[in-house]
Amino acid sequence: MLSVEEARARIVGPLRPTPAEIVSLPEAWGRVLAGPMHARLTQPPADVSAMDGYALRAADGRAGARVAVVGHAPAGRPFPGQVGPGEAIRLFTGSVVPEGADCVLPQEDVDRDGDWITAREAARVGRHIRRAGQDFRQGAPLLPAGTRLGARAIGLIAAANHPWVAVHRQPRIAILATGDEIVLPGEPLAAGGIVSSNAHALAGLIRAGGGIPSVLPIAPDDPAAIASVADRLSAFDLLLTTGGASVGEHDLVQSSLATRGFALDFWRIAMRPGKPLLFGRLGDMPVLGLPGNPVSAFVCAFLFLLPALNRLNGLADDAMQPVEARLAAPVAANDRRADHLRASLATDATGALVATPFDRQDSSLLVLLADAGCLILRPPHAPALQAGAAVPVLRLDLGGL
Amino acid sequence: MLSVEEARARIVGPLRPTPAEIVSLPEAWGRVLAGPMHARLTQPPADVSAMDGYALRAADGRAGARVAVVGHAPAGRPFPGQVGPGEAIRLFTGSVVPEGADCVLPQEDVDRDGDWITAREAARVGRHIRRAGQDFRQGAPLLPAGTRLGARAIGLIAAANHPWVAVHRQPRIAILATGDEIVLPGEPLAAGGIVSSNAHALAGLIRAGGGIPSVLPIAPDDPAAIASVADRLSAFDLLLTTGGASVGEHDLVQSSLATRGFALDFWRIAMRPGKPLLFGRLGDMPVLGLPGNPVSAFVCAFLFLLPALNRLNGLADDAMQPVEARLAAPVAANDRRADHLRASLATDATGALVATPFDRQDSSLLVLLADAGCLILRPPHAPALQAGAAVPVLRLDLGGL
Repeated sequence: MLSVEEARARIVGPLRPTPAEIVSLPEAWGRVLAGPMHARLTQPPADVSAMDGYALRAADGRAGARVAVVGHAPAGRPFPGQVGPGEAIRLFTGSVVPEGADCVLPQEDVDRDGDWITAREAARVGRHIRRAGQDFRQGAPLLPAGTRLGARAIGLIAAANHPWVAVHRQPRIAILATGDEIVLPGEPLAAGGIVSSNAHALAGLIRAGGGIPSVLPIAPDDPAAIASVADRLSAFDLLLTTGGASVGEHDLVQSSLATRGFALDFWRIAMRPGKPLLFGRLGDMPVLGLPGNPVSAFVCAFLFLLPALNRLNGLADDAMQPVEARLAAPVAANDRRADHLRASLATDATGALVATPFDRQDSSLLVLLADAGCLILRPPHAPALQAGAAVPVLRLDLGGL
Repeated sequence: MLSVEEARARIVGPLRPTPAEIVSLPEAWGRVLAGPMHARLTQPPADVSAMDGYALRAADGRAGARVAVVGHAPAGRPFPGQVGPGEAIRLFTGSVVPEGADCVLPQEDVDRDGDWITAREAARVGRHIRRAGQDFRQGAPLLPAGTRLGARAIGLIAAANHPWVAVHRQPRIAILATGDEIVLPGEPLAAGGIVSSNAHALAGLIRAGGGIPSVLPIAPDDPAAIASVADRLSAFDLLLTTGGASVGEHDLVQSSLATRGFALDFWRIAMRPGKPLLFGRLGDMPVLGLPGNPVSAFVCAFLFLLPALNRLNGLADDAMQPVEARLAAPVAANDRRADHLRASLATDATGALVATPFDRQDSSLLVLLADAGCLILRPPHAPALQAGAAVPVLRLDLGGL
């Protein structure tokens, strides 16, 4: 059986980011840059005032000195002339500092009397002036390729004067649930039937990972029906199946797709929950076969599909990132399969993360999966640990999972 | 001047969650439950097998004993009869355990020879059986109102057999940028003009907070143009303005909206960046007037609009949640305004968060805002702190910001 790390490397390693597409700035939120963004202008474009106040020569701005207000320059309407000795220009935050002036006196530091001001505080050269280009200069690199764009990055791209952005096309993932016993929620349910929860849970995970899910009609346990899916995969980047990934009599995914040229890479991983995980290729199309058990399917998708989506999306930083937490309860020694204990996650008085593994770890318990704040990572043959020990955890409580 | 906390209480306190709407299960991802979800069925619906194997009477399953395989029950097709003494039924993970049987022998623990199996390991009563209802029982509460639905919650709702979900309507926020000097990205830019970055950065923040933004046309510095916005606010839950929130000659939002009955609550907060923050009401409509400076506008939206969105969305847990980090560099004593230092955020070898405040904190620096992993919270009059001290931070690196 493969290790989790080797399986992930075999799945994610060969994937290439999707090609670029052009989207409008608002559509780019949440998407991943396909190339670096550079500044199209200099910001601020000129020396500008950091305050509402008066531009003048610092030499004229001694405390108690009177200066004549000879002009007015709102932000966006620069004063066209020169500021001479003994003169000041009324301006506002963001106003261009006019030629001749070398400082700004804030309005709260002057007394105004008609067209005259008297400084209450001495002016200093350069004071309250934001220098041209102090945020960025035309041509400067602002954001590298592979950046996922949040609200602040969108603002920066706007300020750099880009209405359009090149981002990676969102990966399109086909989801095929298999099994005679499963029906969609709300459909008539026969005795012994199971409501399909995997397809829509996985669709949510794919959306959390920046992909576009398509839920295909449920395939019955019929080799021809499963095989025919191979004919409907144009426009997808990856086929995800659930159920039928093992080698039992009803585990048909592998054998059915084999009739269409499916090339198996591996089908077992030394992990819990979720040993029977199938991976291979139909032509160029990666096929990830998840177990039918909903908890196993989710954990496998979290560990293998999410990094695959990050890679397809072109994210620069696409590695799984465990963080450290303290155990609130002891855990037993582990066997040869990497374990992923469902646990609640809290923060103690010092700000440290504290993980409490659930007493029941049976892989059929969806309520506990939904309740979990993290998975505690237990490597193969990890020793028993006492409460208080540090363990690596993968957080489930962030970002749509 | 108000404190940040009092301002937030005045803004968020009177808000009520939006009414419920019904969406299909896939649409419910990322949305907030308007009522509790209960189970429509029992899961598992009956005692089911946890393994591929054989159901039998444990008394017949002594190691070395031979048992006759008299039936076959795939998941979803329960065996209709009774398991008698000396008999076994072939079944699979999820198959209903037939009447008469009280345990499951995994297939790897038996030798099969035609219609006979021989146990290699002794069977035990109840072994490898998942009991009816061990995940949830019909009628049981599964998720409370106010839950934001991630992939796992969607899976749980599906498993509980709900195709439809009642969620709070997404709050609709109107964004009005004001100022003669600003133009949209890519539009012709006059000398001294500024490209509008606030509206689209705020639109991204609103989407991160589960709202639907509408960017209104930019209003010039003209009282009639600004006032006329009051006529176009049906179907919005909140009006957000940027720029013109102070009391300078060009700060027209307050005076313009006053002609349409705007009732001011407050317009200054003891904070940095972003002192001039306007809040009041146009009839029933809350109006939040952000500063024009993009860094100030973003920080104010993060501190005040995001909690407002959480409340409008009906989130059960809508408080700001600072976490603790260690300072990587000293910080100076603070004055009377609460400060929000832009800082990078990393994790040290023990898993603790480490915040490094940027050297430059000028509120015009969008590049540094986009780069920040957190805001370090510095309360009014906070003392100077050395590197290594613990500080509260608000994370910016999670969730679309």
